[in-house]
Amino acid sequence: MQLYSYFRSSAAYRVRIALNLKGLPYEYLPVHLLKDGGQQLSADYRKLNPTALVPTLIDGDAVIGQSLAIIEYLEETHPEVPLLPADAIGRARVRDLALGIACDTHPLNNLRVLKYLKHTLGVDEAAKTAWYKHWVHQGLEALEAQLAGSSATGRFCHGDTPTIADLCLVPQVANAQRFDCDLSAMPNVVRIDAACRALPAFDAAAPGKQPDAE
Amino acid sequence: MQLYSYFRSSAAYRVRIALNLKGLPYEYLPVHLLKDGGQQLSADYRKLNPTALVPTLIDGDAVIGQSLAIIEYLEETHPEVPLLPADAIGRARVRDLALGIACDTHPLNNLRVLKYLKHTLGVDEAAKTAWYKHWVHQGLEALEAQLAGSSATGRFCHGDTPTIADLCLVPQVANAQRFDCDLSAMPNVVRIDAACRALPAFDAAAPGKQPDAE
Repeated sequence: MQLYSYFRSSAAYRVRIALNLKGLPYEYLPVHLLKDGGQQLSADYRKLNPTALVPTLIDGDAVIGQSLAIIEYLEETHPEVPLLPADAIGRARVRDLALGIACDTHPLNNLRVLKYLKHTLGVDEAAKTAWYKHWVHQGLEALEAQLAGSSATGRFCHGDTPTIADLCLVPQVANAQRFDCDLSAMPNVVRIDAACRALPAFDAAAPGKQPDAE
Repeated sequence: MQLYSYFRSSAAYRVRIALNLKGLPYEYLPVHLLKDGGQQLSADYRKLNPTALVPTLIDGDAVIGQSLAIIEYLEETHPEVPLLPADAIGRARVRDLALGIACDTHPLNNLRVLKYLKHTLGVDEAAKTAWYKHWVHQGLEALEAQLAGSSATGRFCHGDTPTIADLCLVPQVANAQRFDCDLSAMPNVVRIDAACRALPAFDAAAPGKQPDAE
């Protein structure tokens, strides 16, 4: 398998964790989101992935964008180690938590959105940072309430083994910390992030450990 | 089953289509996103769904937010009529297309985001509309390229029966049309939207047909 990735992309980070947890080796193909006006915008990359976003996974005939589509594919084709619970209600809860980050938190703070705020709307640095923190806070505050309010929460987001929800939580927390967001009111989020990062599969997937890290 | 919905919510619209295609009856519980300062922000609704977003599906003990988590749950618990292909690569393609809309197009134009642009960033009406059109165009242009570039595209996004990708496409096109976005360069998107809307399950799920339609 080959993974087009950027060390700081939190969507790629999710997939790297999944590959590591399942013990699947892969070739790392860096796509620099800032160099050359954004390598993800090149004609060659767009031919592979018309959304011009990372990651993209290549597995034989399969060419898949969207981190959660990739992870569901890995879950179906390499069921061990499972990243979803066995029961339908548990699976729904995990997907709900994961999508809360993947749909309603992360995309608002994507590089292309921050660029639009700055270059098209003329938003200054302080207002851009406030925007970033606002959506991180709103997203993680909701996640904290979901975690605190459910007896299904364990050492990780759902029970005592990592699931797709944790694969989304850790990269989002990394982003939050990079922008100095206050997570003091989110004890479950902080606790689960630490429990995850203590695992070698999460650690090896961290931005600073990637071949293209700066 | 009970569905907390708002007639104009495109995330709720996706779930309504899924329920109709699978022939599952449900009770419609309206949540007005504009009345009372936003009924989704009420303490009662937040207790049910801490993200304060619609939809929420109730099915016995299951309380699920996030439209795609709900639809995957329905797919697992009521496999007929299937909304995902049988093969792993096909399923990955459908999820990739669906998430391209659900993660990278729709959330940028959500009501709460438009409100932030207006009230916090002081963006005027013209710039707000330009923002809306920009993300719709970018999202649907990528979708068009994905549809045009694959032999797996059929009468619908994937083959000749509706899948989760179509459930995301139709509400996104409805939003695009409501904001008068130009779709002339997206013949596959327009064609598939029309093919879907000709089906009774899609038609009955349309915003204008809901009990809370205005």
